[in-house]
Amino acid sequence: MRKFYFTPGPSQLYFTVEEHIKTALKESVPSLSHRGRAYENIHAAAVEGVRQLLQLPADYHVFFTSSATEVWERIIQNLVRTESFHFVNGAFSKRFHEIAQNYNINALSNEVKEGLVVDVEKLLIPETTELIAITQNETSTGAAQPVEDIYTIRKAFPNQLIAVDVVSSTPYINIDYSLVDTAYFSVQKCFGLPAGLGVWVVNNRCFEKAEKLMNEGLVIGSYHSLPALMEKAAKNQTPETPNVLGVYLLGKVAEDMLKKGIDQIRRETEYKAAVLYQAFDQSPVLSAFVSNREHQSKTTLVAKSTNPSAGIISKLSEKGLVIGSGYSKFKEQHIRIANFPTHSKEQVEMLADELIKIE
Amino acid sequence: MRKFYFTPGPSQLYFTVEEHIKTALKESVPSLSHRGRAYENIHAAAVEGVRQLLQLPADYHVFFTSSATEVWERIIQNLVRTESFHFVNGAFSKRFHEIAQNYNINALSNEVKEGLVVDVEKLLIPETTELIAITQNETSTGAAQPVEDIYTIRKAFPNQLIAVDVVSSTPYINIDYSLVDTAYFSVQKCFGLPAGLGVWVVNNRCFEKAEKLMNEGLVIGSYHSLPALMEKAAKNQTPETPNVLGVYLLGKVAEDMLKKGIDQIRRETEYKAAVLYQAFDQSPVLSAFVSNREHQSKTTLVAKSTNPSAGIISKLSEKGLVIGSGYSKFKEQHIRIANFPTHSKEQVEMLADELIKIE
Repeated sequence: MRKFYFTPGPSQLYFTVEEHIKTALKESVPSLSHRGRAYENIHAAAVEGVRQLLQLPADYHVFFTSSATEVWERIIQNLVRTESFHFVNGAFSKRFHEIAQNYNINALSNEVKEGLVVDVEKLLIPETTELIAITQNETSTGAAQPVEDIYTIRKAFPNQLIAVDVVSSTPYINIDYSLVDTAYFSVQKCFGLPAGLGVWVVNNRCFEKAEKLMNEGLVIGSYHSLPALMEKAAKNQTPETPNVLGVYLLGKVAEDMLKKGIDQIRRETEYKAAVLYQAFDQSPVLSAFVSNREHQSKTTLVAKSTNPSAGIISKLSEKGLVIGSGYSKFKEQHIRIANFPTHSKEQVEMLADELIKIE
Repeated sequence: MRKFYFTPGPSQLYFTVEEHIKTALKESVPSLSHRGRAYENIHAAAVEGVRQLLQLPADYHVFFTSSATEVWERIIQNLVRTESFHFVNGAFSKRFHEIAQNYNINALSNEVKEGLVVDVEKLLIPETTELIAITQNETSTGAAQPVEDIYTIRKAFPNQLIAVDVVSSTPYINIDYSLVDTAYFSVQKCFGLPAGLGVWVVNNRCFEKAEKLMNEGLVIGSYHSLPALMEKAAKNQTPETPNVLGVYLLGKVAEDMLKKGIDQIRRETEYKAAVLYQAFDQSPVLSAFVSNREHQSKTTLVAKSTNPSAGIISKLSEKGLVIGSGYSKFKEQHIRIANFPTHSKEQVEMLADELIKIE
């Protein structure tokens, strides 16, 4: 039996990916020179697809990295001289904070318990902070920071750079990107692609900051510094030989999603999330880990379970439905379910039915 | 007409790759969690395949990065406090030197003209140098440093770390890895895989150096520092979500190559290289760019041409044979031809026949 993956990334491939891979092989995409016209067209199509899906302002740039993890490092190298401030509410937001510490940055943070989001009204951020890092969707706990909170921070801190982690929520999450300076995601989440590609969106303020640090003689990295990325991106190229197949597939899936329509994708995501949270409510065993409904992620849903999660996971797996365990210390107490665009309403309803049956 | 790629990477896929991709899709490899047992087995198989093909000593470690370009940066971050020394004889060895400069390292070099290799007998390397970087096969010019030169350096500098770039020559090149400290390659060259994965081999001396720098409070990177890579590699995992499909394919192709036998691959490579260099000799238009036969690469062959290369490339392309242009400033004067394990004797002979006909 072929299984269907609801794991929170890597997850089920977007339903068109297999065909796109076959076409790519037929067209020798993996053999193309990354310095030739054919690659440049592939690169341009992927950038344009991301740009349209996310409705990016014209002066925002789209760069490719190897992962969102890499973007954390590049943000610290390029955008912070001495001080960053991190919203921390789970393993991934914490990891970004740690990477800043690895680079000997004065990395401040406001840390709240897993399952919560940082309360922006109570927040004290020093004016000396250069970058404010917000994880919009914390994949490890299923807690989502409302976009209005991000806009509140923007208003209060017009001079700071704001970085937003939309790794597991874009393109579902409807953010006005003109109100943040940089954002990033990886393709194995909502885009349903094979892992091995990160996407980094930056505005010109970021670029100017990186150039300023560079001109002061500070290290901002090398082949993936913002000036290096920008120089090649102007030609629809990358500094290194990139994951050409990944870039190709991103462009194709973005095109497929645009054809379907982002509004339709958002409506379906919300419907499917409602079905799953309802299943958590009806279950005698499960309950949503994030108790505040306004902070419940629509794309990565986490339930705590009175039974060890391993038993639930294995029972569902026998029916061909693969879900995720809790993250790290919650491994045994939680289950995690991805609700990405590739997960159809029918499949989600089937999963919900099975979840309710768990005793 | 489906074309056949002799470009020096990305190049023609290894002839088994398409089938392996189809199997991977059937087995949902791109959907597997990178923290689960199934991925760990894939990771272990790829590491073991590389280990056997390269006949690595038992105490050498194999790590995955996104590209060989990334490895340049990680080597500088992890292994150099203040001073490195670079053999420079073309665009790629020069790029490594520049990356060291980007990190404010005192990056010394011995630079020779393109087409030559550094003369190790005449070389002055200060004892203060911490790392000596040698590009065994300079892909931009087709010049190959004899492995005996590397062993000479090893003898003269037992205390320095030696880094060897085998990006476009491994597994063909027969190096005794116990005589170098670190080596690296990318999979889109001789392994014939889709781009987007680098392989970094290090010994324990490298690891100890990185730990020492870290303990002194120096920045050695974050998620891809040697200690971070090592911690996850011990569990057959990676710090970030890796290019899972790429790791899977590397393991499969390494297995295929081991079945064929590395000796057989080496013999065939040498035969095919002889056929191509002979074609250069016989051509009224072409001649080997590297004039010293002992320095002529067997895997990336470069010819200078009395005619503009664009015409030659387009004429061959009409016959379904795709070769590379010269690199950067040599774009119009050179052609570059990959002679990787996927390029069969028959295909190379056909290409040689066409090369001789060029007027």
